[in-house]
Amino acid sequence: MIGQIKIEKTNSPKTKPDQSNLGFGNYFTDHMFIMDYTEGKGWHDPRIVPYAPLEMDPATMVLHYGQAIFEGLKAYRAKDGRILLFRPHKNMERVNISNDRLCIPPIDVDFCIEALKELINIEKDWIPTEDGTSLYIRPFIISTDPFLGVRPSKTYKYIVILSPVGAYYPEGINPVKIYVESNYVRAVKGGIGYAKTPGNYASSLKAQMEAKKKGYTQVLWLDGVEKKYIEEVGTMNVFFKINGEVITPALEGSILAGITRDSTMELLKSWGVKVTERKITIQEIYDAHANGTLDEAFGTGTAAVISPIGELNWNDNKITINEGKIGELSSKIYTTITNIQNGDLEDTLGWTTEVKA
Amino acid sequence: MIGQIKIEKTNSPKTKPDQSNLGFGNYFTDHMFIMDYTEGKGWHDPRIVPYAPLEMDPATMVLHYGQAIFEGLKAYRAKDGRILLFRPHKNMERVNISNDRLCIPPIDVDFCIEALKELINIEKDWIPTEDGTSLYIRPFIISTDPFLGVRPSKTYKYIVILSPVGAYYPEGINPVKIYVESNYVRAVKGGIGYAKTPGNYASSLKAQMEAKKKGYTQVLWLDGVEKKYIEEVGTMNVFFKINGEVITPALEGSILAGITRDSTMELLKSWGVKVTERKITIQEIYDAHANGTLDEAFGTGTAAVISPIGELNWNDNKITINEGKIGELSSKIYTTITNIQNGDLEDTLGWTTEVKA
Ligand SMILES: Cc1ncc(COP(=O)(O)O)c(C=O)c1O
Ligand SMILES: Cc1ncc(COP(=O)(O)O)c(C=O)c1O
Repeated sequence: MIGQIKIEKTNSPKTKPDQSNLGFGNYFTDHMFIMDYTEGKGWHDPRIVPYAPLEMDPATMVLHYGQAIFEGLKAYRAKDGRILLFRPHKNMERVNISNDRLCIPPIDVDFCIEALKELINIEKDWIPTEDGTSLYIRPFIISTDPFLGVRPSKTYKYIVILSPVGAYYPEGINPVKIYVESNYVRAVKGGIGYAKTPGNYASSLKAQMEAKKKGYTQVLWLDGVEKKYIEEVGTMNVFFKINGEVITPALEGSILAGITRDSTMELLKSWGVKVTERKITIQEIYDAHANGTLDEAFGTGTAAVISPIGELNWNDNKITINEGKIGELSSKIYTTITNIQNGDLEDTLGWTTEVKA
Repeated sequence: MIGQIKIEKTNSPKTKPDQSNLGFGNYFTDHMFIMDYTEGKGWHDPRIVPYAPLEMDPATMVLHYGQAIFEGLKAYRAKDGRILLFRPHKNMERVNISNDRLCIPPIDVDFCIEALKELINIEKDWIPTEDGTSLYIRPFIISTDPFLGVRPSKTYKYIVILSPVGAYYPEGINPVKIYVESNYVRAVKGGIGYAKTPGNYASSLKAQMEAKKKGYTQVLWLDGVEKKYIEEVGTMNVFFKINGEVITPALEGSILAGITRDSTMELLKSWGVKVTERKITIQEIYDAHANGTLDEAFGTGTAAVISPIGELNWNDNKITINEGKIGELSSKIYTTITNIQNGDLEDTLGWTTEVKA
């Protein structure tokens, strides 16, 4: 038993930011959830406390050896006032998938969802209501032993912080230009690519910066073995509509099993659209473009939900997809998912969970 | 100009630990060095302050995206009282190699060596003197923007902490048993394998723990593409003596360019021993063992210096190397390097730098 959640409220609530200019990941709410793990004792001392700096010994293992994981999901305020979470079980289950890969002890999924609901209830006035905004939720776990030497830590902290957000990409739902990366590699099978862990993001920065200099929003990763198969884009999974069929790379250990990816596939199936998970080469995409069968391409992820791809650049061969405009299907998926998320559309798929007072 | 190093001494010095039972990475000295980086301003405010917890916003980027690097080197107290550093320029130059890969702004190598000397001077009573002990030095850089979203940070901290240490492996210079890893992958070309960054160590934990359960001290990594070529061992580079020739994997982007590796090669060359850097398969090692030409195998790294390999297990095929005993050459390299490090042997190669009062 983890025990009762202790609550300590802040005495100095912050001024809430202007909803029309939130950006992403800039503002944090008044409180956070924390619990500790100690070897032999398990997870303990769950508490909601004022958002404040953590005191960390300079030898704290996470700073040196990166044993950590994180998640990202969102809470929405429906027009009728309800607070909705989108598939939170999926995220908490993915915490345990990441934990397993990183040698971090598992969390209790149901308890963590309850704790999250309690935190959101306290912070409910922070949930923005303007179109396209939401409350981004960041659960994360860090290894906290003050020790130098490569081994799993014996102590951890699980923390949840909340950030009212607008669009992740300045482009919003407008198509982005993506650079196909043939030099740097994000992950390979046998590595940590399928886990949501800091190292995957640290390793992606250099390719991202070089692509940005060339005028691209993100990179499309290819597999690290043959540099031939498509993996994913930045913090998104990727889909291609070719000849009416929607294709996305299969989960083979090197990419994240995105929840928006899963939701997109379910939706498409429910609409009778053919969806296939398989290995797909970048050459195939270029061939489809050449013979006029590449209808649409888009990324899926919690932060941007759907991000249409308007241009690809692979070794300086540029192709424009769907005339650089938002595709019909991309647009329909975006509208459907966001409307389920914010309660505008009836949730027939059982994806949303209400946070009750 | 980075400016003058400000010094603030502690009022409550700690009791120094028992030198005969230090272990590795458990104790930290009274002071640390810190400097900050701010975009547009560069590295600034270098200071030596009491060792104390860092205050970190829960959204601090390093905790989420792992943009960080570190180093490891040692200071020794010679019998004549001199304080010696072993090839510190190499470590500080490697900081900049790691920084470049992780999109962290470069440091001024010479300034950081001067700062390190100043810190060590203040902590000189912490340098242990017993055989096999030293003062382990851990410079590290963490990204410090309180921001969620994948991009390089605009602020950083460079920190140096010091830890009096004994042997890294409980085995000391005794041969270790190594498990050849055919399932998990540490790094591939195009990734971050050649950088000293947290993600590489986080990704290694699971294989290490599984090997440990089977009774092995560490894993020997194979390449991530063909699972055929030898890479490195845990926190060590690896050498094999076959038929009188010493062979070590070439640096091709997936392994760390170890300073002990470089020193070992230089020493061997100065002794007229043939040393070759090239791709080498695990099959070749097993073949050499089968035909009786595998004389010795050993790891090299700052923490353990030289660690002889007594046994390898590759897909349950076990081989014992040199009857599980320390090889003649391994032993000679160990003695020579450690005696140069601790001042017992004349440093004809110009490897040591004295820390003058
Ligand atoms: C590497 C990576 N791939 C894909 C995704 C999309 O996953 P999800 O749809 O669960 O947000 C994310 C973001 O979470 C990610 O970080
Ligand atoms: C992954 C890895 N390989 C090799 C080494 C050996 O490098 P060095 O001899 O510079 O300590 C280390 C340790 O520093 C390491 O972490």
